[in-house]
Amino acid sequence: MAQPLYVIGHQQPDTDTVCSAIAYARLKQRQGTDAVPARAGEMNPETQFVLDRAGVETPSRLDDAAGERLVLVDHNEHSQTVSGAREAEIVEVVDHHRIGDVTTSDPIFFRNEPVGSTATILTQLYDAADESIDEETAQLLLSGLLSDTVVLRSPTTTDRDRTVAERLAELAGLDVEEYGKELLQQKSKLGEKSPREMVLGDFKEFEFGAHEVGIGQVETVEPATVLEQREAVLAAMDDVVDEREYATLLLLVTDLLEEESTVLLAGGHEDTVGEALDATFTDREAFLPGVMSRKKQVVPPLEDALS
Amino acid sequence: MAQPLYVIGHQQPDTDTVCSAIAYARLKQRQGTDAVPARAGEMNPETQFVLDRAGVETPSRLDDAAGERLVLVDHNEHSQTVSGAREAEIVEVVDHHRIGDVTTSDPIFFRNEPVGSTATILTQLYDAADESIDEETAQLLLSGLLSDTVVLRSPTTTDRDRTVAERLAELAGLDVEEYGKELLQQKSKLGEKSPREMVLGDFKEFEFGAHEVGIGQVETVEPATVLEQREAVLAAMDDVVDEREYATLLLLVTDLLEEESTVLLAGGHEDTVGEALDATFTDREAFLPGVMSRKKQVVPPLEDALS
Repeated sequence: MAQPLYVIGHQQPDTDTVCSAIAYARLKQRQGTDAVPARAGEMNPETQFVLDRAGVETPSRLDDAAGERLVLVDHNEHSQTVSGAREAEIVEVVDHHRIGDVTTSDPIFFRNEPVGSTATILTQLYDAADESIDEETAQLLLSGLLSDTVVLRSPTTTDRDRTVAERLAELAGLDVEEYGKELLQQKSKLGEKSPREMVLGDFKEFEFGAHEVGIGQVETVEPATVLEQREAVLAAMDDVVDEREYATLLLLVTDLLEEESTVLLAGGHEDTVGEALDATFTDREAFLPGVMSRKKQVVPPLEDALS
Repeated sequence: MAQPLYVIGHQQPDTDTVCSAIAYARLKQRQGTDAVPARAGEMNPETQFVLDRAGVETPSRLDDAAGERLVLVDHNEHSQTVSGAREAEIVEVVDHHRIGDVTTSDPIFFRNEPVGSTATILTQLYDAADESIDEETAQLLLSGLLSDTVVLRSPTTTDRDRTVAERLAELAGLDVEEYGKELLQQKSKLGEKSPREMVLGDFKEFEFGAHEVGIGQVETVEPATVLEQREAVLAAMDDVVDEREYATLLLLVTDLLEEESTVLLAGGHEDTVGEALDATFTDREAFLPGVMSRKKQVVPPLEDALS
């Protein structure tokens, strides 16, 4: 049997990463490729809710990608890839983040666009391939799009995302705002989480120059749930810094309704981080008015400051 | 005045790189961006012939890109970018090579596809933007496509290139084979070149692991013109190795009619290179039947062997 092609998103998978992997594997299957969606970590409750609601099977977890053929969706840097990806053949990339450190020996299809979700780009790839989008797939793509753009409220949202969302909602028989509210409620189910889970639930690693940096984000309509436990959360962050030797670890607690974030810090470089984010840390905490996007509002200034 | 956006190809510019820079700058201008085509080195005779024939002005040379905003076409690795590009802001990439080491802080539009020319992708970008392609621009794009694919004969040629070439030829009022022959004649004007110019005329640098490697290519219908001066060419290659401290320097002498290459070698790693290319060097020369593409048939095995 020929080797399958794994379509896989980033570690700490979120809804856009998982739904994009499924939707792109489906497109490739229709085009005659033996493509299999996979995930690089535990499912989060929001994503599980989306798959359950759509009646779609959870993709298998790929624990070691060494020797495999991979399509990367929703990421393009090795600090975020599935384990073993450096020893895998990367044959395609579809993403909407900064350009990272993935290199290849051969020319490949690599499409990155500055839009709100990978699902937005995948919708266009269906169009370009002249393939229709069925109701179930539309529901998956819409979920990825609305989750990543915080129901079109994040500053990463473009006009294209809005147009695509309306079209997907129609195909899925859903209402953008109504379904978006369902998703936001899932994001906010923080009560049951341990401080460590809050830190590592939606977490990304970066290499900025010689610095390993971790940035977690909690998107919620009830930031107080996290901030009330601030000492326990900071202690969990300190543990992670010790274990993984990060130069800095940030946790963004993003208030989805007020469209602002509070950031907590562990590790060093407090002054540099504060300056980069135009904020002042008091007792390891700073307020970031208007900041909702880790990718667009936090990563670029931090990279500039720490590289 | 606002800062212009430079659309620029690789060092040692060839026809695809220069024509793609002009065509993409024109598309951006139509969309209201103050885009300026530029080049990162001397024009070669084939490309100058193309611009003269089309009555198009030669793009200005950009000598230092530090502090500028750049769109990279036809390349995406720093060893091939204009000087100063590491201190520039790279805001877009359109290419058809392997994925290199360009990284960004922000999400950008990055489109790489495994097709025969950057011009092929640009034709699709005109379509996607719903912009028509005028006769002059069609001539430029066709020139880039036919030059890079050796008039659709290179193994890098895809069905998409063939379809796009036919369409561009119609828009330009040219015949693919007839115009292709005109271009090939330009490529073959080697008589007036010095050995050093033969080595460095179409030349690319790569970093394979810790090794700096240079690979030149002469595409010609008269390989004897080069090989008759083999000792002088090898001496010129030795000089370049000394000056630039390459681990290896290869010169591919590609016979466009027989669709095969002879490769000359300077620097070290003869055995590793021979094994990678499945060839045996005798007196610093080896024969590569069926090899026409540096990018597709030489770079990947060399990178694997030397990294």
